[in-house]
Amino acid sequence: MDGCPAGLQISDDDVQKDLDRRVPREGGIVSTRTEADKVEILSGVFEGYTTGAPVCMLVWNRDVDDSSYMEIRYKPRPGHADYPASQRYKGFNDFRGGGIFSGRSTVPLVMAGALARRLLEKVQVEVLAHTIEIAGVKVESDLSLDEIRRLTYTNSVRCASSSVAKRMEAAIVEAAGEGDSVGGVVEGLALNLQAGVGEPLYDSLDADLAKLLFNIPGVKSVEFGLGLESARLRGSSFNDEYTVQSGRVTSPTNRVGGIIGGLSTGQPVRIHVAFRPTSSIAKAQKTVNLKRMEDEIIEVKGRHDPCIIPKAVPVVEACIGIVLTDHLIRVGIIPKVLGNRRV
Amino acid sequence: MDGCPAGLQISDDDVQKDLDRRVPREGGIVSTRTEADKVEILSGVFEGYTTGAPVCMLVWNRDVDDSSYMEIRYKPRPGHADYPASQRYKGFNDFRGGGIFSGRSTVPLVMAGALARRLLEKVQVEVLAHTIEIAGVKVESDLSLDEIRRLTYTNSVRCASSSVAKRMEAAIVEAAGEGDSVGGVVEGLALNLQAGVGEPLYDSLDADLAKLLFNIPGVKSVEFGLGLESARLRGSSFNDEYTVQSGRVTSPTNRVGGIIGGLSTGQPVRIHVAFRPTSSIAKAQKTVNLKRMEDEIIEVKGRHDPCIIPKAVPVVEACIGIVLTDHLIRVGIIPKVLGNRRV
Amino acid sequence: MDGCPAGLQISDDDVQKDLDRRVPREGGIVSTRTEADKVEILSGVFEGYTTGAPVCMLVWNRDVDDSSYMEIRYKPRPGHADYPASQRYKGFNDFRGGGIFSGRSTVPLVMAGALARRLLEKVQVEVLAHTIEIAGVKVESDLSLDEIRRLTYTNSVRCASSSVAKRMEAAIVEAAGEGDSVGGVVEGLALNLQAGVGEPLYDSLDADLAKLLFNIPGVKSVEFGLGLESARLRGSSFNDEYTVQSGRVTSPTNRVGGIIGGLSTGQPVRIHVAFRPTSSIAKAQKTVNLKRMEDEIIEVKGRHDPCIIPKAVPVVEACIGIVLTDHLIRVGIIPKVLGNRRV
Amino acid sequence: MDGCPAGLQISDDDVQKDLDRRVPREGGIVSTRTEADKVEILSGVFEGYTTGAPVCMLVWNRDVDDSSYMEIRYKPRPGHADYPASQRYKGFNDFRGGGIFSGRSTVPLVMAGALARRLLEKVQVEVLAHTIEIAGVKVESDLSLDEIRRLTYTNSVRCASSSVAKRMEAAIVEAAGEGDSVGGVVEGLALNLQAGVGEPLYDSLDADLAKLLFNIPGVKSVEFGLGLESARLRGSSFNDEYTVQSGRVTSPTNRVGGIIGGLSTGQPVRIHVAFRPTSSIAKAQKTVNLKRMEDEIIEVKGRHDPCIIPKAVPVVEACIGIVLTDHLIRVGIIPKVLGNRRV
Repeated sequence: MDGCPAGLQISDDDVQKDLDRRVPREGGIVSTRTEADKVEILSGVFEGYTTGAPVCMLVWNRDVDDSSYMEIRYKPRPGHADYPASQRYKGFNDFRGGGIFSGRSTVPLVMAGALARRLLEKVQVEVLAHTIEIAGVKVESDLSLDEIRRLTYTNSVRCASSSVAKRMEAAIVEAAGEGDSVGGVVEGLALNLQAGVGEPLYDSLDADLAKLLFNIPGVKSVEFGLGLESARLRGSSFNDEYTVQSGRVTSPTNRVGGIIGGLSTGQPVRIHVAFRPTSSIAKAQKTVNLKRMEDEIIEVKGRHDPCIIPKAVPVVEACIGIVLTDHLIRVGIIPKVLGNRRV
Repeated sequence: MDGCPAGLQISDDDVQKDLDRRVPREGGIVSTRTEADKVEILSGVFEGYTTGAPVCMLVWNRDVDDSSYMEIRYKPRPGHADYPASQRYKGFNDFRGGGIFSGRSTVPLVMAGALARRLLEKVQVEVLAHTIEIAGVKVESDLSLDEIRRLTYTNSVRCASSSVAKRMEAAIVEAAGEGDSVGGVVEGLALNLQAGVGEPLYDSLDADLAKLLFNIPGVKSVEFGLGLESARLRGSSFNDEYTVQSGRVTSPTNRVGGIIGGLSTGQPVRIHVAFRPTSSIAKAQKTVNLKRMEDEIIEVKGRHDPCIIPKAVPVVEACIGIVLTDHLIRVGIIPKVLGNRRV
Repeated sequence: MDGCPAGLQISDDDVQKDLDRRVPREGGIVSTRTEADKVEILSGVFEGYTTGAPVCMLVWNRDVDDSSYMEIRYKPRPGHADYPASQRYKGFNDFRGGGIFSGRSTVPLVMAGALARRLLEKVQVEVLAHTIEIAGVKVESDLSLDEIRRLTYTNSVRCASSSVAKRMEAAIVEAAGEGDSVGGVVEGLALNLQAGVGEPLYDSLDADLAKLLFNIPGVKSVEFGLGLESARLRGSSFNDEYTVQSGRVTSPTNRVGGIIGGLSTGQPVRIHVAFRPTSSIAKAQKTVNLKRMEDEIIEVKGRHDPCIIPKAVPVVEACIGIVLTDHLIRVGIIPKVLGNRRV
Repeated sequence: MDGCPAGLQISDDDVQKDLDRRVPREGGIVSTRTEADKVEILSGVFEGYTTGAPVCMLVWNRDVDDSSYMEIRYKPRPGHADYPASQRYKGFNDFRGGGIFSGRSTVPLVMAGALARRLLEKVQVEVLAHTIEIAGVKVESDLSLDEIRRLTYTNSVRCASSSVAKRMEAAIVEAAGEGDSVGGVVEGLALNLQAGVGEPLYDSLDADLAKLLFNIPGVKSVEFGLGLESARLRGSSFNDEYTVQSGRVTSPTNRVGGIIGGLSTGQPVRIHVAFRPTSSIAKAQKTVNLKRMEDEIIEVKGRHDPCIIPKAVPVVEACIGIVLTDHLIRVGIIPKVLGNRRV
């Protein structure tokens, strides 16, 4: 992670805490690895503070299960990047599924996000993410920020409504029982971001957020504010009007989701990120044998989450944090050095 | 436009043709300027072909109407970037609405898109865009590629279904009559793109497409394939299975929208881009006076489209073309020089 | 020019003044065009101040002399990019010499440099450039900053020593009389730059300066401080020792030229930039006909400066100013917005 | 290292071989560490070939000697980045000298260079570097390419002339005996590079080479071809004339050093890189105590090379190789995938 300001207090434990949020301890819902991801900060931190040099962090991917890979060597899994990757890299790609096309690629995003979170704290910006839909089961009622902060990580699906969480869990268990998988939607929020952050033409704030979010495997839709719903409203019902309150400009509504013209408005940034159901399923699917060029059947073996949403929640949060940090550094709100140390 | 391969045959007229598609001649639906946008290629083209140097093209923004700007100097228009821009640039921003926050900023995208289109033709890739929803009026039936190619530009709303287009036009006229505006959805398609194009981690094809599309003013949602709908399907219903047909790998379905793991799959890329209703409306809205810090009422005057979708269609097409061209150059499929000239 | 902070007061005249310094009015030494370069600011400036949007400036290249180009179509001029360009662009390059390989390409550098200079003034950083060697005639004595500021632009060769300038002029006139050309060395200085500016690994301050300077046509060597001479000294004679003076850290010497480890030291940045003699000479030279693949003789016609150093002086100054401005923005010393305007 | 084409055969041993060239086994001249640098390829290589994913390589910096660092905590070493770094990072920088300002930062350049070398071999481009001057002792006679290939690594100073090497070694030993250090000049060569490689305005080939070379600690001058000497020649003596030889365009001379207008000419690229004497010397030097703001004396302890040129030779070679590889990928001469593997 290059470009991190000097003077940020950070330890292995701080990053580990965020990393641990990826894997629900509640079990049953997501796949488990015998050894948990353990992060080491290799460089860029000295006597407990970032030095201004690139921060290198490492998580060893020790618990690799290669046993099932011979089958997929020539049999691309439907929904996976196996086939396009074999075309792009002419067969040199690592087809074992632990590489750049894997959900494992989100681990470094969470690691970088842990630093971003602590930088954002310095300027009182808070990023939250929580599950609002799994397998068609939706959070229908409005959740308070307090509920999102307190309850999101109290269940295995990272949903701030405990009752909805139970129905989501049931839906996942049901699909898993049938060798199938489900998708869902994560809501991301950025609070207390001042107005005017972003770079219109062509690094606008929403564009950069969308870019990083679409780099998360499985994302099929990114919406800001009312999103697709906006297209069905009239201007007079959609525009957020302004008013002066306690000597400050504000809007009673936030349909636009906190960004206009690529700049933050001062209202919360609100993003909905939709994920497709997990690609790897036990159910038999039609595929081809690329060597013999014949149709075949594949049943994907190994450990696979029937739903990636629980693991995706801290990743969405990390991505939003990373992009906001970059932009707050660009506009000079997060300084290049925090405080003052020696001398 | 830097990075355009040498040897592309191009003239002012070629670019002008694409530019003219922005403004429906059918009238009534979009605002008209007394003088049409007229493009001049200033450099980078010699004896009819690109030279490999940056291509500089200019459209003079002559028909500027400043008459109404004094009102908005201190009164930010709801839905516009006026307020966040005034915060970001501390009042130095050009508040007259013709600048980087304006729909005018899409003109250069269409100009660059005109070159991209001709580069894509060299590798048989075709990009299409058409309106599929305005003011809640949707294209419900499946349209053939042939219909999209032939009919999109035969009506003022750029919809390939003539009957739906009429209902869309009626909805726009109705809203405009009430001093209001409407939004809509544009579908973009890229055909005949080979499998394996894109840069996973972190310039994936969908991420780069989303980034440029979200730089178009008014976009609130970008979806690939089934988009948000994907989140509600099971893996077994969503995954696109493979089969061998005439010696080639193909999929009978394309729910994923032509991109997996940031790489093209060889199926058509399909994107839905949702636009909010036009911000500028004649109806009275609440705003504030930034100088006096008091609530006020604003009625936005001047020429404003009650719906920007018709103008957005060629812009979406241009953006998709630009991103695909960049990626096809990166992977070496579009060469840095087309053909051979002298010597 | 993108990334220019909002709130900089700038006019066409300010930029024109810098542009005018490229062409000595003293005559005889450099080629003259019947029409002087005239700059227009097209956008990014509103009511006399930059808006934060990209600043677009235009100089029309009206006085183009194409008469002699047919000869060089297939006959590459020795010392020019004609041959490598024809290989790179397979004959599509604009061979007439007014394009990206021409000295004309330094005009926009001076334009951008004019803005950079005014941004640097805001943080009391001053950039100077002057001629220290032409055709082997060198400035041997130490010049004061005051002399450099006052005298550089009082003669046609931009040399701060009037007596040396006369000998330089004589050397140029002599070479020109023989249909030949000469080279020289320009010294660039940056004063009052605070310590710690730059990005070690891999955008170090000296590296970025060297990169832009080597983009000026004709540069063959870039040296910092004692440059090549450093290689011949011992560490004990080269290292600049520190001392405390009036409560501040300083060095009585500055052999290193103001940059260590890619960071500014607080001492003046001192750079020597050596230019080859002008490529275009009237004297007969051996070349080839690329069409017939035969040896031929070429005598380059048209207007050519027998020495480009006088024009190069403001270009070197502009390049240094641009790079310093970029780095001062990166470290947050030049803010993204200067002052406060409306509201 | 991102952007490495898929399909390159590479092993830990291949990279190790290049890394081993950094440390002369001949002893006496450079500092030695008890444990040699040992590289591990962590990812991006599968079954012996690059996969197209980023290649992550690691060298543990195990043999760190912190014992002497307390002294320099507040006492910046003359010639080192200690002082500017403490200003930039306000005391948070790692002052122990093993970080981004250290010669250790050239290790990853050599690692990346090892891959670059093998990519260049695929297109028959060869990069060489050798010492041409140390402590004023110069290689005066012309060396053949064969001598440079065979003899450079047969002595501790990496000089292709055995007799000159002996005198260089003697000069180093003499300076070291006095607690002092010396500098020198490395020549880099790139052979068999086709004409037309580079990106004029503003990523020209010489500019990009200079930028990376100036990122090597201690470089004070970069020259192409005759370099500074060019400034003293007339155009008629400097220009490289063209002639047709065996049906190909060539030049009997190469004063320009293989690059014109930012593009390769087809002649060998020739670069001279001058290094200052090593900063760390045992001799007493004046410095300041930053805490007490008083003048002090420092004698730098620890292991320090009295001359860094021997270690710099493979680094210069690596840097040239990296930049050429990047540019050959940009112009499409090195393809994104080498050959074809499975399927």
